[in-house]
Amino acid sequence: MREILGPALAHALQRTEGGLALTPLISQAITMGDEFHQRNIAASALFAKEVAPLLARTDVNRATIAEVMQFLSETDQFFLNLAMAACKSVMDAARTIEEGSVVTAMTRNGKEFGIRVSGLGDQWFTAPVNTQRGLYFTGYSQEQACPDLGDSAILETFGLGGMSMIAAPGVTRFVGAGGFSDAVATSEEMAEIVVGHNSNLPIPTWDFQGAPLGIDIRKVVETSITPIINTGIASLEPGVGQIGAGTVRAPLGCFVKAVEALAARYADAGAQG
Amino acid sequence: MREILGPALAHALQRTEGGLALTPLISQAITMGDEFHQRNIAASALFAKEVAPLLARTDVNRATIAEVMQFLSETDQFFLNLAMAACKSVMDAARTIEEGSVVTAMTRNGKEFGIRVSGLGDQWFTAPVNTQRGLYFTGYSQEQACPDLGDSAILETFGLGGMSMIAAPGVTRFVGAGGFSDAVATSEEMAEIVVGHNSNLPIPTWDFQGAPLGIDIRKVVETSITPIINTGIASLEPGVGQIGAGTVRAPLGCFVKAVEALAARYADAGAQG
Repeated sequence: MREILGPALAHALQRTEGGLALTPLISQAITMGDEFHQRNIAASALFAKEVAPLLARTDVNRATIAEVMQFLSETDQFFLNLAMAACKSVMDAARTIEEGSVVTAMTRNGKEFGIRVSGLGDQWFTAPVNTQRGLYFTGYSQEQACPDLGDSAILETFGLGGMSMIAAPGVTRFVGAGGFSDAVATSEEMAEIVVGHNSNLPIPTWDFQGAPLGIDIRKVVETSITPIINTGIASLEPGVGQIGAGTVRAPLGCFVKAVEALAARYADAGAQG
Repeated sequence: MREILGPALAHALQRTEGGLALTPLISQAITMGDEFHQRNIAASALFAKEVAPLLARTDVNRATIAEVMQFLSETDQFFLNLAMAACKSVMDAARTIEEGSVVTAMTRNGKEFGIRVSGLGDQWFTAPVNTQRGLYFTGYSQEQACPDLGDSAILETFGLGGMSMIAAPGVTRFVGAGGFSDAVATSEEMAEIVVGHNSNLPIPTWDFQGAPLGIDIRKVVETSITPIINTGIASLEPGVGQIGAGTVRAPLGCFVKAVEALAARYADAGAQG
């Protein structure tokens, strides 16, 4: 990736004016069954077909072009990398609005689950991670699974992944979360804890409602509905990598702590005002 | 297409063992919102990403590769051509079973709608075409529309297009056929006139039921439900091309004639037997 893929893609992007716009690509792919956490086949294909003519116009040698296109063609989850970066960019922009109760980051380190909130600066609010439920690749089981881990929940922070389960009914079986009606029910539930729907990301299978946008810590605590994350499951043993996929809930505790801090901040502001 | 695209694709396919298998590709793309008549964005992208590394390994010159990949990248309906050929191959194989009441071809010439039936050899059963309903591109209207026309209804003959409307809720708006619930209703109705579901083509938005397969002329006549076709609308004026998209029903008359012919065939067989 460092020596072949990265430089080749950099050359291809130099053929564009300022890069490839990812939001329109995500907007197309969410109509094509991707939720961008456990399913990226559409976005990866759309990205590969955008890159192919650009790459052909560079002076990268043909064997390398063939190798890069072969890799992009076979790696249906490739876009996950770009989706995480895109979501992080959006949510970091949201952090510049230093008010309100919208979650701007969710992440996990295998022990603690942490969230940041727009009105609460850079502080992390944490609680112990939950155990994921899901399906395991042949030969692996729950006992070999690492507790919930990784930065990829930035997707759910932006309303993709488990939040947009209804966009990707093909994923519900892969993560062991049921059929089409279960996918609808999941997104309907997630819609209760957000401030609105993302009009840039209409989901045809949800009668063109936009992806859930802006998890509100007050709604989470009021309803006790916590965000659901479509997660890969990693092995406890280093080097083995992914051994399954499933869903996991963010722990309620970190939202409760954040609401208390928000109440304290506004109580202070009221006292000073 | 004849001088650049065709030869380049032929060179690319020589790098495969016997060509690209289209059924798995259709099977993937039907989970990605394509119904293959008015929406082929997923299948076209999947095809482009399969072809890109193959093409890079040919000795086609780089400018041509760039041009071909640019065209495939921008032409979201490209796969319609391959889908029609794939459906025709399947339905022509079905014609080798010279029994039963399954429709093996539906086509229209702007005046007559014609069908062929497995148990009735090469005979065409015809009735006047219906007028399509749909949405027109800016500046065009129903008065400029050519009556229902073309061979592309081979897609619906195989159970794609309008028959699989539920696979492509994004299309229902484009053809003026409503929202998600209308897409479900359309495919539920179509399921009443087929012999089964295609287990190679499970549709996630239909709770993983397969695409409707095998239009049965007896069921059509018994229920008066005629196949629905997702059609492009052509201008009456030669050279203008497509001016809109909509839906059109096959006329009941040709199915009635075919059922009568089938009854007569089996009455003869009975008399002789």
